[in-house]
Amino acid sequence: MRRAVSATIGGRLSLPLPRPLLVYTTQHRSRAVGGSLGRRNSASFFHSKSRGDHAEALVAVIDKEAANGATRVSIEDILERRAKAGRLVALTAAYSDSDMFKGPTTNKPKAKRWDHHLSPESAVREPCVLKSAAKHLKNPGLISLGGGLPCAEYFPFESLSLRVPAPPHFSETATRAPGGGADLRIGKYDVAAGVAEYDLSIALNYGQANGSAQMTRWVTEHTELVCDPPYADWRCALTVGSTAALEQALRMLCERGEALLTEEYSFSTAIETAGPLGVRVVGVEMDGEGLLPESMERILAGWDASRGPRPHVLYTVPSGQNPTGATQGERRRREIYEVARRWDVFILEDEPYYFLQMAPYQKGGRSNPDPAGAAAATMPVDEFLGGLIPSLLSMDVDGRVLRMDSFSKVVVPGSRLGWVTGSEQIIERYVRHAEVCNQGPSGFSQVILHKLLDEQWGHEGYLRWLMNLRGEYTKRRDVILGACEAYLPGEVVTWSAPAAGMFHWLKVDHTRHPSFPQQSILEIEEDIFNRCISKGVLVGRGSWFRAEQDKAPRDMFFRTTYAAATPENMTEAIGRLGAAIRESYGM
Amino acid sequence: MRRAVSATIGGRLSLPLPRPLLVYTTQHRSRAVGGSLGRRNSASFFHSKSRGDHAEALVAVIDKEAANGATRVSIEDILERRAKAGRLVALTAAYSDSDMFKGPTTNKPKAKRWDHHLSPESAVREPCVLKSAAKHLKNPGLISLGGGLPCAEYFPFESLSLRVPAPPHFSETATRAPGGGADLRIGKYDVAAGVAEYDLSIALNYGQANGSAQMTRWVTEHTELVCDPPYADWRCALTVGSTAALEQALRMLCERGEALLTEEYSFSTAIETAGPLGVRVVGVEMDGEGLLPESMERILAGWDASRGPRPHVLYTVPSGQNPTGATQGERRRREIYEVARRWDVFILEDEPYYFLQMAPYQKGGRSNPDPAGAAAATMPVDEFLGGLIPSLLSMDVDGRVLRMDSFSKVVVPGSRLGWVTGSEQIIERYVRHAEVCNQGPSGFSQVILHKLLDEQWGHEGYLRWLMNLRGEYTKRRDVILGACEAYLPGEVVTWSAPAAGMFHWLKVDHTRHPSFPQQSILEIEEDIFNRCISKGVLVGRGSWFRAEQDKAPRDMFFRTTYAAATPENMTEAIGRLGAAIRESYGM
Repeated sequence: MRRAVSATIGGRLSLPLPRPLLVYTTQHRSRAVGGSLGRRNSASFFHSKSRGDHAEALVAVIDKEAANGATRVSIEDILERRAKAGRLVALTAAYSDSDMFKGPTTNKPKAKRWDHHLSPESAVREPCVLKSAAKHLKNPGLISLGGGLPCAEYFPFESLSLRVPAPPHFSETATRAPGGGADLRIGKYDVAAGVAEYDLSIALNYGQANGSAQMTRWVTEHTELVCDPPYADWRCALTVGSTAALEQALRMLCERGEALLTEEYSFSTAIETAGPLGVRVVGVEMDGEGLLPESMERILAGWDASRGPRPHVLYTVPSGQNPTGATQGERRRREIYEVARRWDVFILEDEPYYFLQMAPYQKGGRSNPDPAGAAAATMPVDEFLGGLIPSLLSMDVDGRVLRMDSFSKVVVPGSRLGWVTGSEQIIERYVRHAEVCNQGPSGFSQVILHKLLDEQWGHEGYLRWLMNLRGEYTKRRDVILGACEAYLPGEVVTWSAPAAGMFHWLKVDHTRHPSFPQQSILEIEEDIFNRCISKGVLVGRGSWFRAEQDKAPRDMFFRTTYAAATPENMTEAIGRLGAAIRESYGM
Repeated sequence: MRRAVSATIGGRLSLPLPRPLLVYTTQHRSRAVGGSLGRRNSASFFHSKSRGDHAEALVAVIDKEAANGATRVSIEDILERRAKAGRLVALTAAYSDSDMFKGPTTNKPKAKRWDHHLSPESAVREPCVLKSAAKHLKNPGLISLGGGLPCAEYFPFESLSLRVPAPPHFSETATRAPGGGADLRIGKYDVAAGVAEYDLSIALNYGQANGSAQMTRWVTEHTELVCDPPYADWRCALTVGSTAALEQALRMLCERGEALLTEEYSFSTAIETAGPLGVRVVGVEMDGEGLLPESMERILAGWDASRGPRPHVLYTVPSGQNPTGATQGERRRREIYEVARRWDVFILEDEPYYFLQMAPYQKGGRSNPDPAGAAAATMPVDEFLGGLIPSLLSMDVDGRVLRMDSFSKVVVPGSRLGWVTGSEQIIERYVRHAEVCNQGPSGFSQVILHKLLDEQWGHEGYLRWLMNLRGEYTKRRDVILGACEAYLPGEVVTWSAPAAGMFHWLKVDHTRHPSFPQQSILEIEEDIFNRCISKGVLVGRGSWFRAEQDKAPRDMFFRTTYAAATPENMTEAIGRLGAAIRESYGM
């Protein structure tokens, strides 16, 4: 972890590596989306840093993929597929799965089986008998006296209307302006009236636990566009958010007494989820690019059986990791995946910040290029997709990844709606659990997001929304970094500029604190935290995020976020943080 | 179970007992709500049957309560309390609990402690560190760089509008009519603008796992009106529905290898929830009033320790039980509660159908009085409440009940929103789990239901909605019962008229089937089920609902619902069911 906060320490893996050069991935992908090498200029949006052997390794990887004849699906392909399929008819509690909505997977292998990874709890789950009976509903003329589904006549919602932004004008001001924004209406019986494919009578009744067919189609297509898993039998299931998805996945894969691998500083809620299940969290060392594959290898190779079985599950946040803000480059991801294959480790890929990948930061509170500039606004969506670091799911030839996507960070947290993608076997087990638990996400959330994302924006409009959003977060990141440069005492506080996400992770050198070593790191951290509260700023204590809470920390950190406060308040808050640190250090 | 389907077999507890006589409970409650004995006539709405010793026992119970000085809160009390408290200010992720919204509980005892009932998983849960940090947000002037809460500026929802029914005209026709119904609008910043107490900027951000303060207030007040728990430290927490609440509760209370008591025919999803947790379900015998306390007593007293620890949790659906439709009368509930006290059993009271308690059925497809009649429409809401069978929660002097309420059956299933009520200790443990799991219900669901139930309808309007709804379900029940009388072969099919809920449970005499005993009950049941599907009707097979799936069934049942199909289709469907049974029996 010492290596996480400075890019100046030597060593093979200690420097944050440049992310894959967009031009190659664009070249690769452009065959499907009609791009060309002529986009090289705008494609350099992300990549002002020099290329090294990393880039060459990447070329090899990509050439290999190209030789395999992989062709990425485009939005046009999806629209064409939909047009051929005709209107989607999926009434109350209709069964659906991703296979109904995916493109051909002819040349892809099937995923491996994961029976030996399943917990006894998950292995014995049977399909919910009442949900299974729904298969008879497709018989023409059948009258159901089966499930206790209330009659939509008694739903006290005749219609629901929304005012939303209209691409490409996403701002609140534009949305509020007369004639700006778009007014959408969801009626109770729009499907019967033939004016929509989803309505309140369907969305507000019981549904299948993997989510409605309507939203399943949308997340399946989106996942194909973004990740295009390299095996045939992948599927998506809607979730009530990634926190719940993680809990379900842990119960599905881990038994009491087992251990879970994760970054040595990790999402505190994930750690708090594992603990009560009797699953011990084991921290893998990190650097500026996050989880270190050689540390993971070392832990697995040197595992002492007296600590219980060797870990067989990794939980990782590859992009804009919470709390460190670290982002794994493509090579790093491939190396982690290879370690996982070698040791038969199943991967939980948590990617709430995936689309908040940003342009490189340059000192003085600026990014290059300007995230609000014309180049960013006019970039074709396929270049945006091509410029994103490939996901672990996109490399997953075995089907050993369960990717967790979420709308919380990029649409609204309150939708409590996300999705998981994995092999048919894993998704089936996941849905069996959801059936006797949350029963899938809120119908209000599903029908509202469907109306916005599918009917109104479409895939292209949503990608433009994401492009706009990452530009906004880039501006916010630049503000906090500028404030840190201006107001934090550089003698004791160091950091790396985040390349994605919402978090900025600060290392504060405890060895220079006047009370050290009489006071422990935790005591000094608490002193600074309390001074922060007194001065009117709330930050996260690094110790909250330690994977192994029983180990004494080696370093002192604070987590800040640039997601919430206004730019003025962020600058003011960093000033207060600087004052709190100076006061504690007697500076 | 043999006793469940006929009211003609003798025996002390085999006859469905009349429900408590409304006049007493109304008399008792009316002191708070301004009612009088003059309402005796309309109060007889439910109770055309003769009184017996049951009614006398009830008088004693009620007199005892009255002597204790219990006074039920009224809607007027709540309105007055709100007026005194002033505008509710609860911003993003604000902490709240029921104690902030309850009336005085001065004379009530505190709940018992349940530490010895908690599973190791639940016992070790710690508060979520990030949610806990929210307590600092109340400091004036504090700027948060703490939680990664996205800025509402990036929520792509400027406003959300609803068209809903306006009491007392609840029908779809009235709601659709110009000038009928009500148009409600939820803006993004209504709270800052001072026009509402809840808005999109708050509801669509992250919140506390027990739900928003706004909806917590509403369910707390509603629970006080309906159940008025007789101990001081009761609390509510919102849930993502009762299926999820049950799963959480089982994980909180039961360990692998333990047993759970429930009705011998029980909600199949509940059985399917317990199984994978390693919790064996033990069926308690039933009669026409549901679970038999003496059977529960027998199981507990005669428990063979070689089967594992004696069960310490009961799961029961007291009203309109799923699948049998049985409803426990007040005395039955008190007896069950006493058995639970004697054996230190914790009770999970699942009450989705509580408000669908109906007028008695009279042969020929009619109820007395007419559920759509003037008396039903003009009944004061306190009489409606007074006429409901008291809940287990309302008798729970120990705090040993966790009651699960749901909007699924009485508003919309798709809200995926309900709530639990229990002692402070139990609710705290429940919320600790929700924090690392579903994180509470959808913000869309919360803000929409709040706008409808709290701001638009208020408690009185909602109770009127419920009164109207149970009238609608009564009419539906009468249709299916009339059809059963007309189309089912009375020689082999028997039933009791449901007194609540959505389900009608049919016993089909397997001993008279020509293939019995060459064919087993399950084989004959399957034959009839398949003939039903061929003839175009879906019913539930009784065996789906057996608590102990490994025991051979003694009788044959089918579950039908009168919730979903139109009256015409219901009649047609029962005709098909009758034909299927006749065909199978060679009649």
